[in-house]
Amino acid sequence: MELLEQRIREQGQVRPGNILKVDCFLNHQLDVELLDEIGKEFYRLYKDEGITKILTIEASGIAIACMTARYFRVPVVFAKKAKSKNLDGEVFTSVVHSYTYGRDYDITLARKFLGPGDKVLIVDDFLAVGKAMNGLLDICKQAGAQVGGIGIAIEKGFQPGGAALRAAGYRLTSLAIVDRMNDDGTLEFRPQ
Amino acid sequence: MELLEQRIREQGQVRPGNILKVDCFLNHQLDVELLDEIGKEFYRLYKDEGITKILTIEASGIAIACMTARYFRVPVVFAKKAKSKNLDGEVFTSVVHSYTYGRDYDITLARKFLGPGDKVLIVDDFLAVGKAMNGLLDICKQAGAQVGGIGIAIEKGFQPGGAALRAAGYRLTSLAIVDRMNDDGTLEFRPQ
Repeated sequence: MELLEQRIREQGQVRPGNILKVDCFLNHQLDVELLDEIGKEFYRLYKDEGITKILTIEASGIAIACMTARYFRVPVVFAKKAKSKNLDGEVFTSVVHSYTYGRDYDITLARKFLGPGDKVLIVDDFLAVGKAMNGLLDICKQAGAQVGGIGIAIEKGFQPGGAALRAAGYRLTSLAIVDRMNDDGTLEFRPQ
Repeated sequence: MELLEQRIREQGQVRPGNILKVDCFLNHQLDVELLDEIGKEFYRLYKDEGITKILTIEASGIAIACMTARYFRVPVVFAKKAKSKNLDGEVFTSVVHSYTYGRDYDITLARKFLGPGDKVLIVDDFLAVGKAMNGLLDICKQAGAQVGGIGIAIEKGFQPGGAALRAAGYRLTSLAIVDRMNDDGTLEFRPQ
């Protein structure tokens, strides 16, 4: 998606440790018009899949999920990263390792929001190693829900998450795939 | 807002400890069409305030903030509840006590996203004691940003947050104010 690649080139910042900061528009400050274009593109790609729910994980995934769900006219459900007193005991749980925060955490989703009648589009802002995504897929499996597709804004193509998901047969679309981040701060995108 | 009150009556669940569960449409599963109506209403109310940014706090506030920002055509910025390695050291910080999680936590916002030139509309899904809101107001004060208004989906009118903010002179709008939650599970809304 040209619009997203261009924005990453203009405002993304490469930091040591293969960190790509896109907090100006994707995960701290949010450019809602850009997110709307991302949602529209996911709809164009997956509109014939019979999607019943958009699934994501808090926090920044929620923004993309909402803008996507507007086009599909289906609800969003988002997995939570901490168990709140307000949640029922009736939850699906999966363990995820975060490289950003350097620890394991549980993700939870109330059972009543996902079941065998659902076909979900999973969306998120980033895909790198794929730990959070594997947690969401595990929850879909526990729920008996079908996965109609996976939509990612930015994939780090030099990390193994995307390749593993494609090899496993998922219909994964990453709107921008960064194949290389150079020491001078420049980026190389995978042609697609 | 009649539409929201009706939905709370139909799908909200009253639980011991003054908990109102609205996870079917507001903060776990998200009814994006309802959120869009909420965003449209905030725009109607605050469109002449010269709002430059919609400010909220992760996680469920993000959904309402995005739908609101679409109408205002301004960016969302959301405060984070944990300090990530990805954040610059250059952040505003405030301490918030969560009654839901029973602990204190820091909220942070990168300094570059809020400054004296900004006039913000703060939005969130719930207002009860007002601890999270006071944290966001503290960050606005640190940034020198003006607060053009506060938009809340559901206010617990029997808790002190709303009254304190109105007494302090903020232009606060809560689209549904629950004044009483009864043992039989029924609710009483404040007429407005």
